Amino acid sequence: MKREDVVEAIIIEKNKLGLSWQDIADELGMGCVWVTSACLGMNSMPKAPAARLCQLLELPEEAQSVLMSFPTKAWSRDVPQDPLVYRLYEVVGVYGDTLKEVIQEKFGDGIMSAIDFSMDVEKLEDPKGDRVIITMNGKFLPYKSW
Amino acid sequence: MKREDVVEAIIIEKNKLGLSWQDIADELGMGCVWVTSACLGMNSMPKAPAARLCQLLELPEEAQSVLMSFPTKAWSRDVPQDPLVYRLYEVVGVYGDTLKEVIQEKFGDGIMSAIDFSMDVEKLEDPKGDRVIITMNGKFLPYKSW
Amino acid sequence: MKREDVVEAIIIEKNKLGLSWQDIADELGMGCVWVTSACLGMNSMPKAPAARLCQLLELPEEAQSVLMSFPTKAWSRDVPQDPLVYRLYEVVGVYGDTLKEVIQEKFGDGIMSAIDFSMDVEKLEDPKGDRVIITMNGKFLPYKSW
Amino acid sequence: MKREDVVEAIIIEKNKLGLSWQDIADELGMGCVWVTSACLGMNSMPKAPAARLCQLLELPEEAQSVLMSFPTKAWSRDVPQDPLVYRLYEVVGVYGDTLKEVIQEKFGDGIMSAIDFSMDVEKLEDPKGDRVIITMNGKFLPYKSW
Amino acid sequence: MKREDVVEAIIIEKNKLGLSWQDIADELGMGCVWVTSACLGMNSMPKAPAARLCQLLELPEEAQSVLMSFPTKAWSRDVPQDPLVYRLYEVVGVYGDTLKEVIQEKFGDGIMSAIDFSMDVEKLEDPKGDRVIITMNGKFLPYKSW
Amino acid sequence: MKREDVVEAIIIEKNKLGLSWQDIADELGMGCVWVTSACLGMNSMPKAPAARLCQLLELPEEAQSVLMSFPTKAWSRDVPQDPLVYRLYEVVGVYGDTLKEVIQEKFGDGIMSAIDFSMDVEKLEDPKGDRVIITMNGKFLPYKSW
Amino acid sequence: MKREDVVEAIIIEKNKLGLSWQDIADELGMGCVWVTSACLGMNSMPKAPAARLCQLLELPEEAQSVLMSFPTKAWSRDVPQDPLVYRLYEVVGVYGDTLKEVIQEKFGDGIMSAIDFSMDVEKLEDPKGDRVIITMNGKFLPYKSW
Amino acid sequence: MKREDVVEAIIIEKNKLGLSWQDIADELGMGCVWVTSACLGMNSMPKAPAARLCQLLELPEEAQSVLMSFPTKAWSRDVPQDPLVYRLYEVVGVYGDTLKEVIQEKFGDGIMSAIDFSMDVEKLEDPKGDRVIITMNGKFLPYKSW
Amino acid sequence: MKREDVVEAIIIEKNKLGLSWQDIADELGMGCVWVTSACLGMNSMPKAPAARLCQLLELPEEAQSVLMSFPTKAWSRDVPQDPLVYRLYEVVGVYGDTLKEVIQEKFGDGIMSAIDFSMDVEKLEDPKGDRVIITMNGKFLPYKSW
Amino acid sequence: MKREDVVEAIIIEKNKLGLSWQDIADELGMGCVWVTSACLGMNSMPKAPAARLCQLLELPEEAQSVLMSFPTKAWSRDVPQDPLVYRLYEVVGVYGDTLKEVIQEKFGDGIMSAIDFSMDVEKLEDPKGDRVIITMNGKFLPYKSW
Repeated sequence: MKREDVVEAIIIEKNKLGLSWQDIADELGMGCVWVTSACLGMNSMPKAPAARLCQLLELPEEAQSVLMSFPTKAWSRDVPQDPLVYRLYEVVGVYGDTLKEVIQEKFGDGIMSAIDFSMDVEKLEDPKGDRVIITMNGKFLPYKSW
Repeated sequence: MKREDVVEAIIIEKNKLGLSWQDIADELGMGCVWVTSACLGMNSMPKAPAARLCQLLELPEEAQSVLMSFPTKAWSRDVPQDPLVYRLYEVVGVYGDTLKEVIQEKFGDGIMSAIDFSMDVEKLEDPKGDRVIITMNGKFLPYKSW
Repeated sequence: MKREDVVEAIIIEKNKLGLSWQDIADELGMGCVWVTSACLGMNSMPKAPAARLCQLLELPEEAQSVLMSFPTKAWSRDVPQDPLVYRLYEVVGVYGDTLKEVIQEKFGDGIMSAIDFSMDVEKLEDPKGDRVIITMNGKFLPYKSW
Repeated sequence: MKREDVVEAIIIEKNKLGLSWQDIADELGMGCVWVTSACLGMNSMPKAPAARLCQLLELPEEAQSVLMSFPTKAWSRDVPQDPLVYRLYEVVGVYGDTLKEVIQEKFGDGIMSAIDFSMDVEKLEDPKGDRVIITMNGKFLPYKSW
Repeated sequence: MKREDVVEAIIIEKNKLGLSWQDIADELGMGCVWVTSACLGMNSMPKAPAARLCQLLELPEEAQSVLMSFPTKAWSRDVPQDPLVYRLYEVVGVYGDTLKEVIQEKFGDGIMSAIDFSMDVEKLEDPKGDRVIITMNGKFLPYKSW
Repeated sequence: MKREDVVEAIIIEKNKLGLSWQDIADELGMGCVWVTSACLGMNSMPKAPAARLCQLLELPEEAQSVLMSFPTKAWSRDVPQDPLVYRLYEVVGVYGDTLKEVIQEKFGDGIMSAIDFSMDVEKLEDPKGDRVIITMNGKFLPYKSW
Repeated sequence: MKREDVVEAIIIEKNKLGLSWQDIADELGMGCVWVTSACLGMNSMPKAPAARLCQLLELPEEAQSVLMSFPTKAWSRDVPQDPLVYRLYEVVGVYGDTLKEVIQEKFGDGIMSAIDFSMDVEKLEDPKGDRVIITMNGKFLPYKSW
Repeated sequence: MKREDVVEAIIIEKNKLGLSWQDIADELGMGCVWVTSACLGMNSMPKAPAARLCQLLELPEEAQSVLMSFPTKAWSRDVPQDPLVYRLYEVVGVYGDTLKEVIQEKFGDGIMSAIDFSMDVEKLEDPKGDRVIITMNGKFLPYKSW
Repeated sequence: MKREDVVEAIIIEKNKLGLSWQDIADELGMGCVWVTSACLGMNSMPKAPAARLCQLLELPEEAQSVLMSFPTKAWSRDVPQDPLVYRLYEVVGVYGDTLKEVIQEKFGDGIMSAIDFSMDVEKLEDPKGDRVIITMNGKFLPYKSW
Repeated sequence: MKREDVVEAIIIEKNKLGLSWQDIADELGMGCVWVTSACLGMNSMPKAPAARLCQLLELPEEAQSVLMSFPTKAWSRDVPQDPLVYRLYEVVGVYGDTLKEVIQEKFGDGIMSAIDFSMDVEKLEDPKGDRVIITMNGKFLPYKSW
């Protein structure tokens, strides 16, 4: 079983059982964004949630070791095109230098890690139109001199 | 005066006066990320904060109309290279499809606007290493059928 | 059934029945451009037109849920090559900055949404050569300061 | 005087006199989109409007022949980045094949000319948010066989 | 039957029957370049030559409607590599601006259409080496002002 | 004097004297396309026409040796954008494989040289719209085996 | 049989019979580089060596006509990556302008043909490390004026 | 003095003195291709030829240390366009895999060095058209296992 | 058996037997990085380790000659995306010019060979977080003059 | 003073004083690779070495604050071309997946940080040709689940 086969099986079973990503995340007792990313093949799962996921979705036995293996992360190689993803990319383009200024002003020279990192999505109801709230939380890594 | 001249003048005066972006934002009574982005030329300022900024930094008179004019947004044309900005781009690559799944599960078919949008950066102190918290807040726009 | 299978099935049935896109749009009671785009997989259909389309073209049952699901929009990754599509791209290149000037002069700083958006095509008969009339209608979104 | 000098002089004089593109177009008795595009250097002007423009904005004498000369059209070489222009590009990506289907269904095999072409922008007031109406009008050119 | 199947069938039958493109063009009573381009899938055929071609090469019945349908033109997405095609591309690079100067000097501001267009290839025998003569014939389209 | 200075001087003097490229070509007794390309810096001139051109346009003495030197040919590095030049590029894309088929059918395996090559542009008056006639004439070079 | 099938068959038979490219070239009485390139599908073979090759490697009958047909030359579309090929590409980058200077000084304005062209590889034994000797031999083509 | 200033000074003095690259190479007692490449800034010169060159062309004193410094090699970043250089690039594309096959058959797994490398150009007179002979001579480097 | 089949077989057998790359390298008596790279198809194996590997992993007989054949090295054609590989690429970008300065200061004009080259990875345990130690060892090749 | 002015001043003074990068690093009591990278503008200096450097090279006073400011890291945007840097890039291409396998086998799923990172270059004398030893030392960062 290759990773893309496991991803495809997860989506088919999820639709068949009528589960949302949030339902699955609640079953696994972990965050919805992280669980979705691991199900889409972009993160490796520790043993416990991998086993629970296989049980929940009745995945074949070897799926568990695939879910636990370390993925090679890759994505569409060009400017993203789907409008939802493009808007995120546009935010990085428009506000990238601003974030560099603001973060380094607060923390000194360094970066926000994308590895020791978590992310969350919330819905804020609003009569003028609901709002999407995305929160990123990454460890600050200072540059080292030697 | 061109926009890049105003940006350069702001940075020189800011350094001369020893002000941080946060100080300037507090003086203008607006968010630090938005103020920084407008000072870097990526957003147009309403009249009041533009006038206050010119007074605070003793910018030449014509700077105010430049700050109020509508910028053509543009950024470095390739995969970003500065490590801080690249990590943000990597987050979009690794989690872009995940965010599409999670947002559309919560809201239906549509996007998070990058125009009717705000963003904030906070520092979370942590003995194992401080953490950067970035919060994005954008209006959800549903696709229209006709 | 994947989206591309549904698209292919629609085109085969449409040709077999000798229907035009306009005929299908009239049957569904919706705009011809929107119906065509949804049939080509670039928009999700609400339940009623999806059901009517499946009935009209005798599509397999599971096609309806595919038509209702939220597509990942993507297109040919380069400068478009088909001459008809290229001419549209050329219009954006030649008149893009002009439209920015004219729209922002009329509306202030902001954009025309491509999400809360509709489009129509008409034929204007003319003895010197018929003319194509394309009308776009998008909500103006003003930039927000915070 | 090079074309970019004339474009810059037009913008400076326009701002000094407090004229909008619409004001200038009304003075020249021609469409606002066309006038703006010619002022930005993307179309050549016939003698009468070029002379009237030079008089109106008190441009140097040689500007008139530059305005009448035939421009080499060129634009930013990448996926457009300004959010207003990007949304237009996204429309071409998402609806390009749809427009090909719909236009060729109505007209036969051929294209909409981007040369024998005009375009207009209107503002439609709407309590839920004003709307931008863009109308394109291009001659249909059928493919020739020989 | 997809377009590429029809193209492949044409080439197989043409080789089997020992026909040249010129032979086929003579049978159809049309130009050799146009017939070849239509057989390679880059132009749509009117009914009469499509029917004659199907009869001549004993193509399956449905090939005729494919030959008559409107192709989406596309080509190798990069600088062409086959040496014969590259030399044509090099000619456009080296002489493109020259042709713009010479054509617009003779005709005014506008373009040579690539749609209302025909092309011919002749062989000119020469003891120092035969010469290839390519003739292009396209309608001049003047830019419109409005 | 660099090549671009000579090109600029030629264009200024040509406009001042009110000469067309055809006038200059007639004075030099050579083809209009070739003369234009050499004046734009894409071909080296033999001594006689270079001297005659310098005399005709009263160019500085050192211009003659620049006109006679061997240029490094280069052009805009992307898909051409000016609509006149793009249409030529589109012709190569749409008809490139066709020309390969037709030329190699008539001549055997080899190419049309772009070096031992000439080109001409004519205007064919036509009440339905004048037509541009471009003729290319290149030596056929057969591939060698060894 | 397509060209890539013939290439694959040649390599399988060559390995099975334990022949080197040099052995095959000697059997055909032609140069090793040319024979290898034709076997890899980058050159068309005249009838005699094609027939001899088919006999030698016991290729199916139709392979001969494929070997004699005129290939469309194409190669990996990016900067080459295999280290051996990259070093050749680097030589063109580092020494390209130098070769232009030196060749045009010796021959006048023109090029070395890559069509009327041959190439050879020799091994020069050397105690400090053997050396690769590559010799290219191409006809000089002078630019034409007209 | 920057490297490009030294390159420019060399070319001006060379033209003033009417020297060819071959003349300069003979004066320095080194190969013409190497001398030209060092004069164009693509190789560093040892002290003796650098001193002799400065004396011969009466270059300013500091030119010698620039000629002796280690250049950062770089070239035009795209498919080369000048026809002479393109033909060399085409040779690498068409014959790259062939050279890999032939060299590794003769030498084993490894590459031809482009560093421990020399190159020469000769003119072979021929009544049917003179021929350019390019000879490359590079050390073979075998891959290492460890 | 093609190279990718052998790579896949190696990975399947390695997982089945529960061997690490280090285990395999120890069995073959060679370095872990080199063995891994050869197993992934980026280096050719001498006869002894190829035979031992086939025996150890019970690979089919023909795998040995594939492992001994000379690979065409190639990799993902864009900026690498997997975060681990990207960080290495970032190091080359940030420190590339620095390494050129430091190496050429120590060794003179030349390069570090990537062919006569070896590499090693060690784990340095550290209570504040373990550290990865990568050591590269390449022959210095001085540029040659001639 | 901009960063590039400081970099240029450092190089001029270093050459004037005849100092090597190693000499400067020894004076500052820090690593040669880190000092060189900071002098080339790719790392920010703490106060003490920045002050010592300014004193050593007699740089203008404001250089110190530039050296201490946080740089935006950027590099040449294409495949690197200088042969020394290209070989490093080739190593990442050829061995990137190998390093991912070996590092993650030793450490688990995660990356080697390029921020909490140091690097060193040594010369290993060898009668068969000296060898370049590059050592990288980066903190391992495990992926986080949440």
